Amino acid sequence: MIITVKKEAKKQDIDLLIQKLELQGVQVHLILGENYNVFGLVGDTSKLDEKNLLANPIITDIQRVSQPYKLANRMFHPEDTIVNVNGIEIGGKKIVMIAGPCSVEGQDQISRIAKEVKEAGADMLRGGAYKPRTSPYAFQGMGTAGILAMVNARHETGLPIVSELMAIEHLEEFVENVDIIQIGARNMQNFDLLKAVGKTKKPVLLKRGLANTIEEWIMAAEYIMSEGNPNVIFCERGIRTFEKYTRNTLDLAVIPIIKERTHLPIIIDPSHAAGDYKLIEALSLASIAAGADGLIIEVHDDPCNAWSDGSQSLKPKRYAQLVEKGKQIAKVIGREM
Amino acid sequence: MIITVKKEAKKQDIDLLIQKLELQGVQVHLILGENYNVFGLVGDTSKLDEKNLLANPIITDIQRVSQPYKLANRMFHPEDTIVNVNGIEIGGKKIVMIAGPCSVEGQDQISRIAKEVKEAGADMLRGGAYKPRTSPYAFQGMGTAGILAMVNARHETGLPIVSELMAIEHLEEFVENVDIIQIGARNMQNFDLLKAVGKTKKPVLLKRGLANTIEEWIMAAEYIMSEGNPNVIFCERGIRTFEKYTRNTLDLAVIPIIKERTHLPIIIDPSHAAGDYKLIEALSLASIAAGADGLIIEVHDDPCNAWSDGSQSLKPKRYAQLVEKGKQIAKVIGREM
Amino acid sequence: MIITVKKEAKKQDIDLLIQKLELQGVQVHLILGENYNVFGLVGDTSKLDEKNLLANPIITDIQRVSQPYKLANRMFHPEDTIVNVNGIEIGGKKIVMIAGPCSVEGQDQISRIAKEVKEAGADMLRGGAYKPRTSPYAFQGMGTAGILAMVNARHETGLPIVSELMAIEHLEEFVENVDIIQIGARNMQNFDLLKAVGKTKKPVLLKRGLANTIEEWIMAAEYIMSEGNPNVIFCERGIRTFEKYTRNTLDLAVIPIIKERTHLPIIIDPSHAAGDYKLIEALSLASIAAGADGLIIEVHDDPCNAWSDGSQSLKPKRYAQLVEKGKQIAKVIGREM
Amino acid sequence: MIITVKKEAKKQDIDLLIQKLELQGVQVHLILGENYNVFGLVGDTSKLDEKNLLANPIITDIQRVSQPYKLANRMFHPEDTIVNVNGIEIGGKKIVMIAGPCSVEGQDQISRIAKEVKEAGADMLRGGAYKPRTSPYAFQGMGTAGILAMVNARHETGLPIVSELMAIEHLEEFVENVDIIQIGARNMQNFDLLKAVGKTKKPVLLKRGLANTIEEWIMAAEYIMSEGNPNVIFCERGIRTFEKYTRNTLDLAVIPIIKERTHLPIIIDPSHAAGDYKLIEALSLASIAAGADGLIIEVHDDPCNAWSDGSQSLKPKRYAQLVEKGKQIAKVIGREM
Repeated sequence: MIITVKKEAKKQDIDLLIQKLELQGVQVHLILGENYNVFGLVGDTSKLDEKNLLANPIITDIQRVSQPYKLANRMFHPEDTIVNVNGIEIGGKKIVMIAGPCSVEGQDQISRIAKEVKEAGADMLRGGAYKPRTSPYAFQGMGTAGILAMVNARHETGLPIVSELMAIEHLEEFVENVDIIQIGARNMQNFDLLKAVGKTKKPVLLKRGLANTIEEWIMAAEYIMSEGNPNVIFCERGIRTFEKYTRNTLDLAVIPIIKERTHLPIIIDPSHAAGDYKLIEALSLASIAAGADGLIIEVHDDPCNAWSDGSQSLKPKRYAQLVEKGKQIAKVIGREM
Repeated sequence: MIITVKKEAKKQDIDLLIQKLELQGVQVHLILGENYNVFGLVGDTSKLDEKNLLANPIITDIQRVSQPYKLANRMFHPEDTIVNVNGIEIGGKKIVMIAGPCSVEGQDQISRIAKEVKEAGADMLRGGAYKPRTSPYAFQGMGTAGILAMVNARHETGLPIVSELMAIEHLEEFVENVDIIQIGARNMQNFDLLKAVGKTKKPVLLKRGLANTIEEWIMAAEYIMSEGNPNVIFCERGIRTFEKYTRNTLDLAVIPIIKERTHLPIIIDPSHAAGDYKLIEALSLASIAAGADGLIIEVHDDPCNAWSDGSQSLKPKRYAQLVEKGKQIAKVIGREM
Repeated sequence: MIITVKKEAKKQDIDLLIQKLELQGVQVHLILGENYNVFGLVGDTSKLDEKNLLANPIITDIQRVSQPYKLANRMFHPEDTIVNVNGIEIGGKKIVMIAGPCSVEGQDQISRIAKEVKEAGADMLRGGAYKPRTSPYAFQGMGTAGILAMVNARHETGLPIVSELMAIEHLEEFVENVDIIQIGARNMQNFDLLKAVGKTKKPVLLKRGLANTIEEWIMAAEYIMSEGNPNVIFCERGIRTFEKYTRNTLDLAVIPIIKERTHLPIIIDPSHAAGDYKLIEALSLASIAAGADGLIIEVHDDPCNAWSDGSQSLKPKRYAQLVEKGKQIAKVIGREM
Repeated sequence: MIITVKKEAKKQDIDLLIQKLELQGVQVHLILGENYNVFGLVGDTSKLDEKNLLANPIITDIQRVSQPYKLANRMFHPEDTIVNVNGIEIGGKKIVMIAGPCSVEGQDQISRIAKEVKEAGADMLRGGAYKPRTSPYAFQGMGTAGILAMVNARHETGLPIVSELMAIEHLEEFVENVDIIQIGARNMQNFDLLKAVGKTKKPVLLKRGLANTIEEWIMAAEYIMSEGNPNVIFCERGIRTFEKYTRNTLDLAVIPIIKERTHLPIIIDPSHAAGDYKLIEALSLASIAAGADGLIIEVHDDPCNAWSDGSQSLKPKRYAQLVEKGKQIAKVIGREM
């Protein structure tokens, strides 16, 4: 940690600060600059609180040298983590394709779409049973009935299932029934929910929050891991910007960054990023080319009558075309699909 | 609702769309333009799903004419809502001052600060017992012990107390002990939590999310109100932007906008917006001048040793000076403090 | 254009508004809704000023149905525009690779790098002679000497040259010497500069502004085209967001969007988006997969001693590897490189 | 400057880096940390280029300790700069009120409005003769005729005049006729234009760019000052965010920040920030309370027929009311108006 101190600070205030820092077990190296003095701290600074230090009027700035995350940090865990989901590996050589409707709308619908996406090349099935909706007047999901319909669809197709958990009270239901628990963008910093899924061993698909930095996102993974669950999969789904032609702005630079800084897999959700089915193929192929470990894509066989997110859903046929092109791009960069 | 349709759409597709819309109980007015045709829909369009409509390839755009919020909408409730908290009115002529430490650190600390902020002119006491922290390794709050210390401080000073609720499992504890339940910025779209506090009658302080539009914020209030709780108080605390010299960017235009569009009170939190004690006074006086119904400000008697947020905490003396100036500005705009 | 009018507006005010609109040559279709009335305007609304209309207190909202751009609009020009640069086509089947140093640093440097990037597969040479720098104390470019060094490098290698124009006073120098005039992100809304290059026939590489919407970007192209120059090439280089691990956030959704809405070519600059050489390959391959018509990449043979932007420059060898992979991805999507 | 170096870096690479840094005249202090090593540099680091250093693969991060601005820096110029405009001081005790129409529309219009705003309490007159418009088809300003009409209005009222300069070719016209040259938001990083006005002695009103950080804004002032013109006045006019209910988000924290970090005056433009006349009064009073040195507000006597920006223009009567309230708030914080 680097602390910048005002040049005009009094000696007694500087001594007091050094003493306080040393009491917390860190060594202080003093560098006298022209306009500022700098303290370089060596040792375990993780317990030091930047905001308290900044409350000291002789301090003008604080910079951390080490990352605030440990368990997710590649520095201390150089090899890739591969998350195993019913025998399917996420983070290995094979790019994993997850597809399905935004919402489960009934047993027929989810079973039918499950078969179609499997046919088209999907490895897993997505479907929402508990839906985070901006409006209290919008369809809120089928709840337990939706989860059970997903379970039946898994029996019929063999596809592992992914669904979003919104509240701790449904955790048991998810642990019992679902193969990957999704934490949605709006709950990325719902820390109690993170701790709760951290106490299970279920794979967790951790979506990036609408306006969260990559560092905050890794810290959310750290919450889950620090409770004992190492099976975290990052999922980028676009961030909020000023642009109005797309629903969100997909940030593909996160792929090489997450891979450099952490050892965890990362998949991409182009559907929520774009909000428009016409953009999905381009963004999906781009994600594969950039090194994503998987894609989660909304597919519906009747988007105009979907109960939610119709505008961003691909029809199964277009999805199958995307998978075909994706396979070839995967090959170019030494992956499989 | 206004639907823009491609000029080259086939007659049969247009007829099908009109038929489908009419089946949902709305009248369709057709306007033939030069490059596009436009459908003007009259009737209750609240059940129509924009995203499904946009999945129809002949549709290029959808615009809503009416606001998606009803209970919070001033159009249907022209008079101001005043939220009564143990006899203190929020949203009336008097500007309400809430102050206290970021975190409760013990009985002595909260009792001492409670007395100091009361002395300095505060009407209510704030203090966090459950803390949303970016890092799992940071202090997470004293929990129940913190809430009880707040209750004791209320007994000693008479100040009503405000604290943040992070999980439904603590709701009962909050209903029993706390006077205003705060929903934090990170939970503004934790819809299960919103519904849960909506089932109580407790006043709810609803912070704006880091990257949420005003419309989403009002919809979050609508979630609470639609469950039966009309006592919602908006709280602006800065939004996330590209700027790095401040922690967040305080958006004061929300004050006249919330007052024009809704009938609910709005208060300002300059502490979290600025993240720097040196900016608090200027932003507080600005908030009062802009018409805020109250201010919630972090005050600590030893910021350098605060357990959280020291850098943005005012000392009681500076807080008292701020209150003095604030009172005079309140007078200029016809308010009291 | 759709105008939303308050339900409680007086008849005389409504009549006055209709009369005023009809005087401007548009037909007004009136739709009486439940909470608002709506005017649907048919005819040429391009002369109507939204902001003036919004100054009318009976109006609550205005929505345009037609796009504000005409010359760039694919609706009126369905076939792709291909920009010809000394025989190299941008916007055709072949993906065009532009490479070179951030700044021209001397004849030797630019000649040497020109040969290296040609060898590695580049089609054109980039190099800055006039540099937009945040600090007045930073290297501002070699000016005319830099342009002349570029010209010599073209003679030596046959590569057409691209350089950024910052001020109208250098326009003649650029028209005479340069093959593509680059308008930088900071000048995307320097309207006098846009008009000036619009009066030439030179191909213009129009970078997207740091915080400009796609619509504003297309309108900037419209400025150039409306002066008579149809040879506009869009260039995405990342937009400004809250994220701190990258310099900018590359927005690849612009590729299918620009291609849907306009008939102009679009290329990608991953170097300025990322600000970090380690991210360039992933973002470049992603751009090709998403359908970009070209890439402009910073390449330097000694990045640690570059006079600017060293951290985001690739060495020629890494660039050659990127070109190899890019060629294979181009093939997958039916392009060449 | 603080350089973070990888722990596993080879000794020879570290030695080479130290040698290179010392050759540039700085002293290197080495701190050996647990996960990283840190170099603390003492001496004049202004010539070191962060991006070149970051191109060195053993370096992971660079932090500057000193600010990159010198002439604008309060550290080296502790007393406030007061800019004198025809005898009116900006940055002194009196808060300066600038008002007038968005565009000059003719001699009658500007003369009439000049008298009205003077009557209402304005100190200076604003009016655009060269207009930066998003669309090439929108009114582009009256040009020279507009400037001359402003000059006449000054003769009639005594009010100094402010107008926006968009291109160097009009600089002479502005130096001769105008009292304050405005640099618009879109030209904040038009560095050639900044240098050009820096070569004059005219007061410059430097608007903040739509998406520029405070640091970049101060660096733009530094461009002007480094050419010899010390008369820079900052003007905040809102920044671009995701919010859609306002045109821009007004950032009032800049007032105390600019005053802490620089010695230059700062005024606020609430009209362009809000884009809606109904929000102007609240934001204006807030700006005064926060310590602004002045306000620039759009006033038009017939907003519905204004040639530009009608929706955000106040009528003279409402402006006069705002001035009255503003005067009282000014008094509370020890200023005059």
